[in-house]
Amino acid sequence: MIQARSIDVFFSAQSFQENDLRNKTVVVIDVLRATSTMVTALMNGARGVIPVGDMGEASKISQNLDSENHLLCGEKDGVKIEGYDLGNSPLEYTREHVEGKTLIFNTTNGTKAVKKSMGASNVMIGAFLNLTAVSRYLESSQNDVILLCAGWKGRLALEDTLLAGAIIYKLYGGSLPDTAPDGAKVAFGLFEKYRDDIESVILQSNHAVRLADIVENNDVSYCCKIDLCDIVPVLTDGIIS
Amino acid sequence: MIQARSIDVFFSAQSFQENDLRNKTVVVIDVLRATSTMVTALMNGARGVIPVGDMGEASKISQNLDSENHLLCGEKDGVKIEGYDLGNSPLEYTREHVEGKTLIFNTTNGTKAVKKSMGASNVMIGAFLNLTAVSRYLESSQNDVILLCAGWKGRLALEDTLLAGAIIYKLYGGSLPDTAPDGAKVAFGLFEKYRDDIESVILQSNHAVRLADIVENNDVSYCCKIDLCDIVPVLTDGIIS
Repeated sequence: MIQARSIDVFFSAQSFQENDLRNKTVVVIDVLRATSTMVTALMNGARGVIPVGDMGEASKISQNLDSENHLLCGEKDGVKIEGYDLGNSPLEYTREHVEGKTLIFNTTNGTKAVKKSMGASNVMIGAFLNLTAVSRYLESSQNDVILLCAGWKGRLALEDTLLAGAIIYKLYGGSLPDTAPDGAKVAFGLFEKYRDDIESVILQSNHAVRLADIVENNDVSYCCKIDLCDIVPVLTDGIIS
Repeated sequence: MIQARSIDVFFSAQSFQENDLRNKTVVVIDVLRATSTMVTALMNGARGVIPVGDMGEASKISQNLDSENHLLCGEKDGVKIEGYDLGNSPLEYTREHVEGKTLIFNTTNGTKAVKKSMGASNVMIGAFLNLTAVSRYLESSQNDVILLCAGWKGRLALEDTLLAGAIIYKLYGGSLPDTAPDGAKVAFGLFEKYRDDIESVILQSNHAVRLADIVENNDVSYCCKIDLCDIVPVLTDGIIS
């Protein structure tokens, strides 16, 4: 259980400056779907994920890699980018598709949040799929912790807020100190209220409703699965592995 | 009770574009302390409040007004601006000080939020002090409603989120539809969790703790008083009255 270190929450990738992350341990959260997809890809044997900010950057990196060993992956506003190998549905990232590959990954909110956090001391990738593993990792963090929700185009997203709350709940054993920052209190309070009902609440979130119109897969239910794996993807020299 | 119109929450003055407020009814919320102070000033007979974005704008407006009938008011980072008549403690805005006066008002977050909302269809000022009056006014709104929390330097503030939740709770009679936007769900859920304990929760918010170091008055407890008055300040042609 974290005692001395502080934990705070940013609710969108636009709600902070890079400088706010200096000397911090950062967990990037984009439940629907970027961080759930990254965790799935690495669980299924991908060598690494290179987060990029736009398609131009993806193309440049792609040109310098052996074409057999990498995949261009990502979405724009929820839809797979034309000509890319994979979109942003975690269910596409099977072992058959990704084992041994390096993924160049470009999404609307999630990868931008990772890119913006590169000045932090440590950056890891959080999803419900690896909730307990991330929480355990944070217990040993020497730095203050920021849970960085990608949100949606500058706004708070319910599913990201709930995962931030779940991580805080795990770390503090269900009893947050009065001195915790406002952001931590909001996320914690929301998770405590909905914790027996996470999947059905997230299925009614704005983002899930938007996705229901554009994706066929059962992505949202999958992204709500807790502790499907025990890995903690970490960003090192621009690559998540 | 609102049925057809939607209600959403922005958690800081930086989390939206002016265009997002077009054709909307907006309630600006800055519990600690700008909107609580404005409500108090108007309750105590001030003629009007002119919100300004900075000290330069305040000076220019001041030069065009009869010096006997207006006051320069406001704070920078919680402290009264040097040479101004009043700061941002609502307890300063007594009838003796403000009756019949026009106030030029400049604060760190709250007046900036009002300025940014000038493109909306209607803009009103919300505080716990006029909670029921604002909620009743919204019941008759023809437009979709935005609860615009000023927050603190781009970040969510617990006290503003709780008031947004309180307004939604009043409007929906304690039962928010599943189709409500994420922002409304977060604010509503938080208020529902803490509603029996508003003052003590707000006394432990980041902003209240910051204020405790710089103000002597018992501002925070005052700002938590519910329904001290029945007025709904409205913005018309740049003046709140």
